[in-house]
Amino acid sequence: MANAPVQRMSQLMAKTLRDDPADAEVLSHKLLVRAGYVRRTAAGIWSWLPLGKKVLSNVERIVREEMDAIGAQEVLLPAILPREPYEATGRWDEYGPELFRLKDRKGGDYLLGPTHEEIFTLIVKDQASSYKDLPVILYQIQNKYRDEARPRAGVLRGREFLMKDSYSFDTEDEGLAQSYALHRQAYQKVFERLGLDYRICAATAGAMGGSKSEEFLAPAGAGEDTFADCPNCDFAANTEAITYELKPVGADGVAALEEIPTPDTPTIETLAAHLGVPASATLKNLLVKVDGEIVAVGVPGDREVDLGKVEAHFAPAAVELVTAEDFVGRPDLVRGYVGPQGLDKVKYIADPRVAPGTAWITGANKEGLHAKNVVAGRDFEVGEYVDVVVVQEGDPCPKCGTGLKLDRAIEIGHIFQLGRKYADALKLDVLGQNGKPVRVTMGSYGIGVSRAVAALAEQSADEKGLCWPAEVAPADVHVVAAGKALQTELALDVSEKLRAAGLRVLVDDRAGVSPGVKFTDSELMGVPKILVAGRRSAEGVLELKDRRTGEREELTVDEAIARLTA
Amino acid sequence: MANAPVQRMSQLMAKTLRDDPADAEVLSHKLLVRAGYVRRTAAGIWSWLPLGKKVLSNVERIVREEMDAIGAQEVLLPAILPREPYEATGRWDEYGPELFRLKDRKGGDYLLGPTHEEIFTLIVKDQASSYKDLPVILYQIQNKYRDEARPRAGVLRGREFLMKDSYSFDTEDEGLAQSYALHRQAYQKVFERLGLDYRICAATAGAMGGSKSEEFLAPAGAGEDTFADCPNCDFAANTEAITYELKPVGADGVAALEEIPTPDTPTIETLAAHLGVPASATLKNLLVKVDGEIVAVGVPGDREVDLGKVEAHFAPAAVELVTAEDFVGRPDLVRGYVGPQGLDKVKYIADPRVAPGTAWITGANKEGLHAKNVVAGRDFEVGEYVDVVVVQEGDPCPKCGTGLKLDRAIEIGHIFQLGRKYADALKLDVLGQNGKPVRVTMGSYGIGVSRAVAALAEQSADEKGLCWPAEVAPADVHVVAAGKALQTELALDVSEKLRAAGLRVLVDDRAGVSPGVKFTDSELMGVPKILVAGRRSAEGVLELKDRRTGEREELTVDEAIARLTA
Repeated sequence: MANAPVQRMSQLMAKTLRDDPADAEVLSHKLLVRAGYVRRTAAGIWSWLPLGKKVLSNVERIVREEMDAIGAQEVLLPAILPREPYEATGRWDEYGPELFRLKDRKGGDYLLGPTHEEIFTLIVKDQASSYKDLPVILYQIQNKYRDEARPRAGVLRGREFLMKDSYSFDTEDEGLAQSYALHRQAYQKVFERLGLDYRICAATAGAMGGSKSEEFLAPAGAGEDTFADCPNCDFAANTEAITYELKPVGADGVAALEEIPTPDTPTIETLAAHLGVPASATLKNLLVKVDGEIVAVGVPGDREVDLGKVEAHFAPAAVELVTAEDFVGRPDLVRGYVGPQGLDKVKYIADPRVAPGTAWITGANKEGLHAKNVVAGRDFEVGEYVDVVVVQEGDPCPKCGTGLKLDRAIEIGHIFQLGRKYADALKLDVLGQNGKPVRVTMGSYGIGVSRAVAALAEQSADEKGLCWPAEVAPADVHVVAAGKALQTELALDVSEKLRAAGLRVLVDDRAGVSPGVKFTDSELMGVPKILVAGRRSAEGVLELKDRRTGEREELTVDEAIARLTA
Repeated sequence: MANAPVQRMSQLMAKTLRDDPADAEVLSHKLLVRAGYVRRTAAGIWSWLPLGKKVLSNVERIVREEMDAIGAQEVLLPAILPREPYEATGRWDEYGPELFRLKDRKGGDYLLGPTHEEIFTLIVKDQASSYKDLPVILYQIQNKYRDEARPRAGVLRGREFLMKDSYSFDTEDEGLAQSYALHRQAYQKVFERLGLDYRICAATAGAMGGSKSEEFLAPAGAGEDTFADCPNCDFAANTEAITYELKPVGADGVAALEEIPTPDTPTIETLAAHLGVPASATLKNLLVKVDGEIVAVGVPGDREVDLGKVEAHFAPAAVELVTAEDFVGRPDLVRGYVGPQGLDKVKYIADPRVAPGTAWITGANKEGLHAKNVVAGRDFEVGEYVDVVVVQEGDPCPKCGTGLKLDRAIEIGHIFQLGRKYADALKLDVLGQNGKPVRVTMGSYGIGVSRAVAALAEQSADEKGLCWPAEVAPADVHVVAAGKALQTELALDVSEKLRAAGLRVLVDDRAGVSPGVKFTDSELMGVPKILVAGRRSAEGVLELKDRRTGEREELTVDEAIARLTA
């Protein structure tokens, strides 16, 4: 392929802005807009301008090369998909309002694919008939659609976004484990080549081990995920996925349940202050409605309930908080004084910290009264133990007990052993070695391609602007003509020589723009090397600046070309 | 970039079929499905399997390189678009049922982009402020959506399809002409590199010249377009676009209008037979409804009305044929005996063949009566002349008068000088050289990328199957192991050597598949060179076959590599 032509900024659609866009909250959003890489077309719907498209294509190429290297076959499936297969797996309904649904002119139901498990399953059902046709890994790099309730953070969480999704098909569990391992390696290579700092975290993890799903998380302040890292052992997990082992304790020495007057103590804080005990000695009982039925959720008084975890537990049922109306006609539910020992008519779930044998101060189900010495398993039964608390910095590592460290991160990849869920729903069998049909087992694997661009922007930016790693940068070198005709002539001349030497060149040849503005723009735009034709242009001397380190050196044209192509 | 790994057919998702798919009408549809390149996911919605994706990507790469070469800047806009800009230009309604419309979770209106004039206009409005920022050409390669009434012909006319669309922005008409000329050259290079036989046809053309829109048509039996070619001069046009100059004739010698009894002659055929005149001497008056209003369309009795042309003339108004009900309560409209000389209450349009001064036999607006010597401009007035007849083989060239030749063709590209329509609707101005705002003038240019794959399949196939030009083929060489372990070992060995030499290699290493089936498959799949490890494998001798010519020669491994890499 021919070298790309030199890109002149005088002709480039990449207008830089001095000010952050008003609606931007996170760094990558601000910088990608200010540097002229992207523009908002609608809420959560983005246009990639020329420089942004170059970075996006570079990420895409790296992902493609590493997928090809593990023998994955690239395909391209439609983005608009028929309802029927998603009906068969239940996802047409389960997705709820996040799914973009539409009708065609004949009234047929379609959706915009959020992921493509169903269609890939049908492709393999059509294509593979024997165990000899497997294993196979298929992938595509394609726009995906999710109608987020609150699209935010720029291209970090759009409603249309570019994703690499792949799917593996095996007859045996060992094969699936191998396809999974291949993806894990490929993802490590991709993120290393991208220059991203990342951690591989168990997505469903705990003391019991057995990880079938891992997330690749890139630490960044703008991240929507929180991950926990053990400073002592190799444990790392999304806090949403951390589970603790249930550890019952002996309660032989605990006195009998006793009700105590606690007037005007409807909150944990007022109760703990009144009794002079730590909040952790009390049991908080949060009421929620699950598909309209009231459920109580018990956690230690000093801990918050993670509603996302409650929702995940009851999914696809809908979870809501109770309102004043829900107490009407329910004398068993005394607002502010709920305790599990009297709740015969509601389901009670609790965090493993409320283990059998633990004793608590909690509501007495009577206005102005609490109860102490309320023992789990003796005075009340927990219907089901579910990890529902918000994990905090310093919580014990589920593996070794050391206090965990927490960080914000962006999920840039996810690998998942699906098993036979989709093959069961869509009846994907192949003929096995013994001549009988074998149900196929699947894996599903994703990389957020457009999101990776935002993650890179987040991680590599400094106070001056973007600062791309070399392999994804929109150009290898940003040549700046800082002066008048002489400087512009030199800049264009050296740009053409650099292009001929195989480099991708962006040149700031704008007339009527001051050197100061050009320098500021070059730092904002973040090409790794900046070559300035300035004061000493008449002598043929240029200044080469490293965008990251700020190091500068003066070089002749030939020296500059030699240095840059080294 | 590293060489792509050798693709083994034992692991490839590309199942070939012996029989044509039941719903396939056209050659490319049959062959692309049978050779395992594409699969239907829903009506007009296609999945590209690995070999199909490779061909599609090759076409995409060629288009990209030639667009880059004319200085066009690649961007990527969303496929899901907000209603407002399309409302501003009127296209939200004008598109009718062809537009996929959908709502988001908040009830906001969106569409799936059929083309992106509006959004590109807004991008440039945001990015360009001065004449110095122009001219600019922006392009993208992206899925487009059109809800066709009758999706047919496989990927030739899908409801989701891959398109290169570009848009030029200039301040002056001369600039637009230049941007248009650049596209015309780039398209010629693209289609030449693709190995497509094509013609550039005026899309709105006629004797008066002044072409502002041209189509690139690839002759093929499966084409939905018909184009006319002059054997004498350089005139070529889509028949839909041919217009004739109006040539009034003298009518001094024509006798007065006379009504003649013509019982039982409600059709042109019965009338011409009854009177013993050619059908061309009669005037046919077709009644249609335009947004509910009746309009009569006059053409010579031997010609057919092209309803598409009538629709195009009245667009965006809807055109329907009249039904029996429309004659109720209309004594002025006598079914089978309509003539323009008594039609005071309906609009009358006519083909230029019904020029002023021409005399006709036509209906007398009375049951069982016709009129002769009915002269246009004397006995009736034509409200508007519109070219509405179906162009026929042998019709005169509008430029030189020679009989035209007609052919079926696939529209693979279209270039169009839009002018200021979108800039007016969305108020796109830049500051001109004189310091005053200048309205921008635009061009719009498309290449059907997925359609080009189908056009290539149509044009290059022979009775054995597909037969790709080298630059778009899914591989450079298809190595066939025709035999047992010895042949497979040699085939894999030579494949690896060819890959190392930089070739893209597909190898048929399937066990348990006969040589005959492998040969048939290799011819169906259409890789240009086929290298067979067969009878003389023990001696290290292979057979190299040219897919198109069928020429064969026996070569050693080294000779084969030298020949293929030459």
